[in-house]
Amino acid sequence: MNAIEKKIRSIGVIMPGDILRINNFLNQQIEIDVMRYIGQEFKKRFDGSEATKILTIEASGIAIATMLGLYLDLPIVFARKQPVLTMTDDMLISQANSYTHKQLNKVFVPATFVAPTDKFLIVDDFIAEGEAIRALIDIVNQGGATVAGIGIVVEKGFQKGGRELRAEGYHLESLAIIDEMDYETQTIRFRDQD
Amino acid sequence: MNAIEKKIRSIGVIMPGDILRINNFLNQQIEIDVMRYIGQEFKKRFDGSEATKILTIEASGIAIATMLGLYLDLPIVFARKQPVLTMTDDMLISQANSYTHKQLNKVFVPATFVAPTDKFLIVDDFIAEGEAIRALIDIVNQGGATVAGIGIVVEKGFQKGGRELRAEGYHLESLAIIDEMDYETQTIRFRDQD
Repeated sequence: MNAIEKKIRSIGVIMPGDILRINNFLNQQIEIDVMRYIGQEFKKRFDGSEATKILTIEASGIAIATMLGLYLDLPIVFARKQPVLTMTDDMLISQANSYTHKQLNKVFVPATFVAPTDKFLIVDDFIAEGEAIRALIDIVNQGGATVAGIGIVVEKGFQKGGRELRAEGYHLESLAIIDEMDYETQTIRFRDQD
Repeated sequence: MNAIEKKIRSIGVIMPGDILRINNFLNQQIEIDVMRYIGQEFKKRFDGSEATKILTIEASGIAIATMLGLYLDLPIVFARKQPVLTMTDDMLISQANSYTHKQLNKVFVPATFVAPTDKFLIVDDFIAEGEAIRALIDIVNQGGATVAGIGIVVEKGFQKGGRELRAEGYHLESLAIIDEMDYETQTIRFRDQD
């Protein structure tokens, strides 16, 4: 087991509805050793990607993007879920259903932050159905930029997001892939990635 | 001028209503060199604070908190502006008017992340009237913890937030303090902090 899998098994909580709560080390309270591991691991896995920028979506993704930006020495852009007063530029807008939050989110990125010469590493904490990641890919495409890779901390391997994106040729790396998890028994099975 | 002041002067945009747009290096697109400077500077200014955790509020504050967490080797907690499905614990809840976003925000932190033994360094990108920072202080107080210090990247010195908090005895450090800014002439005057 790697550091993320160990952390999930030791202090993650399986909730009803296939929801995994890891807000005690990744999602709202954030452990720095975990973040260091994520930064190092993504740096290794995306070595040679020639990425020029990191893209994520607020809120939890920002910590992950910051670490990777630091390790790769790249600027970060995060998509907002609500427009703010300071966003007066032309906007790239997409939308995504949130599996965890049960709502349709629009996502907003100022067009000036996405140039045709940019290669984006997209990162986020979770992938399930892949809706948020697809919204970010859509933003990248709208700006005429390219996707250099997709880095996910926890993939729900029993949902289709990661599988479909890999099948479409994206270089998607997940640090932990959950193949099964069961609320009643609080057990979890990770995919062997060695 | 320090690195933040230079950055504001070179690529910040003064908008009507005393709003400063710096979403091209801090607020939505984030430059890593700027983040490194922020992390190093806060580390220096809060040396000896004996902080045990960093506290911020989503979204822009998370990148700042992550850098400081890395430099001080401390865990981070961020307050959410909306409850999420995975937040089922007892919540500490406060509220703040947002000057920039013109709305009343509630802020939520699971009570388990705030222990009476904790000393929080509170960080955020901006302080104007100080409402968001006061909501975070309120969260810390509700949990019986203490405030070790408050680190702000940009203080609007012509609004009362920073002044009042310093007068109340908080150790508040702002990397750039704007004493005046003018939309018509796009000029800005920083407080001399040397």
